[in-house]
Amino acid sequence: MKTNRGILIGRMQPFHNGHIQVIKKILEEVDEIIIGIGSAQISHDLKNPFTAGERLVMIKQSLVEHNIDPSRYYIIPMEDINKNAIWVSYIKMLTPPFNKIYSGNYLVKQLFYEEGYEVKTPPLFDRLKLSGTEVRKRMLNDENWQELVPNATVELVNEIKGIERIKNLSKKEISDM
Amino acid sequence: MKTNRGILIGRMQPFHNGHIQVIKKILEEVDEIIIGIGSAQISHDLKNPFTAGERLVMIKQSLVEHNIDPSRYYIIPMEDINKNAIWVSYIKMLTPPFNKIYSGNYLVKQLFYEEGYEVKTPPLFDRLKLSGTEVRKRMLNDENWQELVPNATVELVNEIKGIERIKNLSKKEISDM
Amino acid sequence: MKTNRGILIGRMQPFHNGHIQVIKKILEEVDEIIIGIGSAQISHDLKNPFTAGERLVMIKQSLVEHNIDPSRYYIIPMEDINKNAIWVSYIKMLTPPFNKIYSGNYLVKQLFYEEGYEVKTPPLFDRLKLSGTEVRKRMLNDENWQELVPNATVELVNEIKGIERIKNLSKKEISDM
Amino acid sequence: MKTNRGILIGRMQPFHNGHIQVIKKILEEVDEIIIGIGSAQISHDLKNPFTAGERLVMIKQSLVEHNIDPSRYYIIPMEDINKNAIWVSYIKMLTPPFNKIYSGNYLVKQLFYEEGYEVKTPPLFDRLKLSGTEVRKRMLNDENWQELVPNATVELVNEIKGIERIKNLSKKEISDM
Amino acid sequence: MKTNRGILIGRMQPFHNGHIQVIKKILEEVDEIIIGIGSAQISHDLKNPFTAGERLVMIKQSLVEHNIDPSRYYIIPMEDINKNAIWVSYIKMLTPPFNKIYSGNYLVKQLFYEEGYEVKTPPLFDRLKLSGTEVRKRMLNDENWQELVPNATVELVNEIKGIERIKNLSKKEISDM
Amino acid sequence: MKTNRGILIGRMQPFHNGHIQVIKKILEEVDEIIIGIGSAQISHDLKNPFTAGERLVMIKQSLVEHNIDPSRYYIIPMEDINKNAIWVSYIKMLTPPFNKIYSGNYLVKQLFYEEGYEVKTPPLFDRLKLSGTEVRKRMLNDENWQELVPNATVELVNEIKGIERIKNLSKKEISDM
Repeated sequence: MKTNRGILIGRMQPFHNGHIQVIKKILEEVDEIIIGIGSAQISHDLKNPFTAGERLVMIKQSLVEHNIDPSRYYIIPMEDINKNAIWVSYIKMLTPPFNKIYSGNYLVKQLFYEEGYEVKTPPLFDRLKLSGTEVRKRMLNDENWQELVPNATVELVNEIKGIERIKNLSKKEISDM
Repeated sequence: MKTNRGILIGRMQPFHNGHIQVIKKILEEVDEIIIGIGSAQISHDLKNPFTAGERLVMIKQSLVEHNIDPSRYYIIPMEDINKNAIWVSYIKMLTPPFNKIYSGNYLVKQLFYEEGYEVKTPPLFDRLKLSGTEVRKRMLNDENWQELVPNATVELVNEIKGIERIKNLSKKEISDM
Repeated sequence: MKTNRGILIGRMQPFHNGHIQVIKKILEEVDEIIIGIGSAQISHDLKNPFTAGERLVMIKQSLVEHNIDPSRYYIIPMEDINKNAIWVSYIKMLTPPFNKIYSGNYLVKQLFYEEGYEVKTPPLFDRLKLSGTEVRKRMLNDENWQELVPNATVELVNEIKGIERIKNLSKKEISDM
Repeated sequence: MKTNRGILIGRMQPFHNGHIQVIKKILEEVDEIIIGIGSAQISHDLKNPFTAGERLVMIKQSLVEHNIDPSRYYIIPMEDINKNAIWVSYIKMLTPPFNKIYSGNYLVKQLFYEEGYEVKTPPLFDRLKLSGTEVRKRMLNDENWQELVPNATVELVNEIKGIERIKNLSKKEISDM
Repeated sequence: MKTNRGILIGRMQPFHNGHIQVIKKILEEVDEIIIGIGSAQISHDLKNPFTAGERLVMIKQSLVEHNIDPSRYYIIPMEDINKNAIWVSYIKMLTPPFNKIYSGNYLVKQLFYEEGYEVKTPPLFDRLKLSGTEVRKRMLNDENWQELVPNATVELVNEIKGIERIKNLSKKEISDM
Repeated sequence: MKTNRGILIGRMQPFHNGHIQVIKKILEEVDEIIIGIGSAQISHDLKNPFTAGERLVMIKQSLVEHNIDPSRYYIIPMEDINKNAIWVSYIKMLTPPFNKIYSGNYLVKQLFYEEGYEVKTPPLFDRLKLSGTEVRKRMLNDENWQELVPNATVELVNEIKGIERIKNLSKKEISDM
């Protein structure tokens, strides 16, 4: 396959402006980008509040909002398999052929590196502010999380009552039953 | 189904007097109660010393001991599935139809709430003393755990040498092999 | 444990009069019976139309209908694990201790026999007519299936529109999409 | 969510002209279509020769070839979970919200119907000729399979040496080792 | 790794003289052989009567019986994973590095071929007589199966009462419970 | 089976001189030893850097290096199953029959003890220095890890660039994507 494809995998909990920046940068380097929604089976916990389907809507609508050509990306949910040594081949099973992997995660980098892939650190952006951790912290504390994400993420979160979900999940029982 | 059924899910590690109180209270509000033994596949660790089968005996015999009408409850082991978004439908697969969910766990409450169920906090009891954590702590320290649980739980624990099990599991290796 | 317990495992698709006869017979031989709902995770196919929860209601209500003492039985859903060599220990994890196993299935018999259990063939009844296969065939062909099952099974099947479900599942597509 | 979305799930082994026709018809009825690649984890057998990633390329490129607006569809690989009673909620976890389900498979229809969905039979096309079965048969027998599929499918199959794969998989061993 | 290693994977149900011949031949071509016990999790059915552990004893003791240098082989149980596209990487996770694959199974051949491995058909032997199918048929019919297998296989089968197991597993119920 | 077999299960991350000492001691007490590679499916994390296959090579070549009779040991990868109550029967499925279990892990000891096995603490060695934890710490800090392991382990680690792998895995991202 002659198409020059890169893959970017992240949990996208939630999809924020940093992701948009990275995707735009990568699209300057490749023909098409595969966006992997990592830990697709996980949701409804404080670090992973949103389902794969909810994240898919955030991503797709945000890319539309930013006028990114829809013929140039694939968005694919990817479940964890908990066997690092076969993870790369699992990703390959689910995706079109690709030749570049973009990741800031050192496990991901190492696994693809051992399989002979070209591994690149995603282009820089203001990581300290633009992280899923920061967005979720603001959601929990009624701070301005909206400025960190595309409108499409705001809309989806409102529609599913996402802030209420996160706040409810943060409550602790007095004792175990 | 016209039967008014409530469901109470807990790990019951072990089944103690607080559970009995809660079940009696719930039975004042519903026709039948479904008692879910959560994390059924887990046993032999310090937070989860007992198997699903051992917990089933504790619960059934305790309810008999308290003269609770056996035609009014179901006791069902439920394994974890580690996908929150489909957990409610897994519970529905294993159980008779129910309309009320009783839980003090905020994840459980949120998952059923999102599916449109009526979610109720179980009636109050002396939670600080009557918790699985407290019972297991006393078991480990040779304190009076027996006063916190029904006789049936005492008998089952003795029969399976449960105190010895817990003490053995609490030992630590000097180093990893 | 001094209680003399027997275990009977079947798919109960659906629960019929033959099961009732067998359970009554076994209860003449043991103190308590464990009724295992086999292949609990399977439903909505022609050989296994009903969920574990639906079968649980059939069984419990049928036993009530037949005035069988509810303190003498346990009804436990059991998922398949597809590793025959560890199946017996999986069953033991989910159940109270038992000493007799009743089964007409030669794989089940062999697995428990190799673990040193006393294995008994369930008491006889009119097997040619009273089988799950026969009941399901009649359901599909609008024949008199009701005479083969307890009233509680009839009621549950009607309530969930079980006949419609079976008939729908029996339809075949013209071709694969 | 106000968007009117339909979902179409199929194994797409391979993606053929019938699928294109159906998708075009459905897009006349809904705003957006979710295309589910069923049995995503299965490949390299005679009925399922292609991986999820390979099928994803076929579908995406075929839709581009037919000038279908890429902002109007989602293509999502879906693994089997082998528990019919929770399958619908698994699909919902992976997808944007949808309100119509298009399927010719009676199990799929029944499962969504029981969850209260509007279930529609996909618009008709020449099913006897345009089926995955027919395409695979022609591939194996060196007949004209190319006329039944979009060019993008032809290209992908050639690129991965798909005909060689199918022919190799059809060989039989003399005896089991 | 400079060691020239070949891998041979089979279900070995049971290990017979044909396997011995093949292993000896392969050891003329490589430094070391990896013997994979396929479908390791399956046992106690008519096509797969023996556990992985039982097959391991058969193989090891048979190789000792035939004076094959124990430093030149590895015997490794391998469970099925039911995802063909990642099976090769699963095998690689469990084994020392190897460069040649010996198999008569066309799926195995194809999967390794697509990963760039040198795939060889195992050296010939009298396959019509020397197959697992033939051995199991003779076991069931009290024919001379012993002549087809090493003494070590005979001994293990006798020790575990393997013939009784196979005969019991071949019995059929009159009807499904 | 008259053979007196012992089993030793460890993660062997990596295989070090302490393991060699223990194995030699155990071989003074039994005819054959089964060496179980625990957590076989885990690799590429800081506590478990090596795959099952890599560990298998370390162990086999180290035992050859120490002139231990290869007909007296089995080396078997064992995946975790996360259900303590059935773990013993899973181990039995994968292994030849054994009568003694050697372990310093109190969970392992308890599980086998409850199944009636003779459980022995492995013979002593200099545990504070000879632990997997210590070896991995030295690998990460460029200290002398080589003195703690057999030459075969050194060679395998070098061949797979194991030190680079461990150092890469120890890096931390600035923030989550």
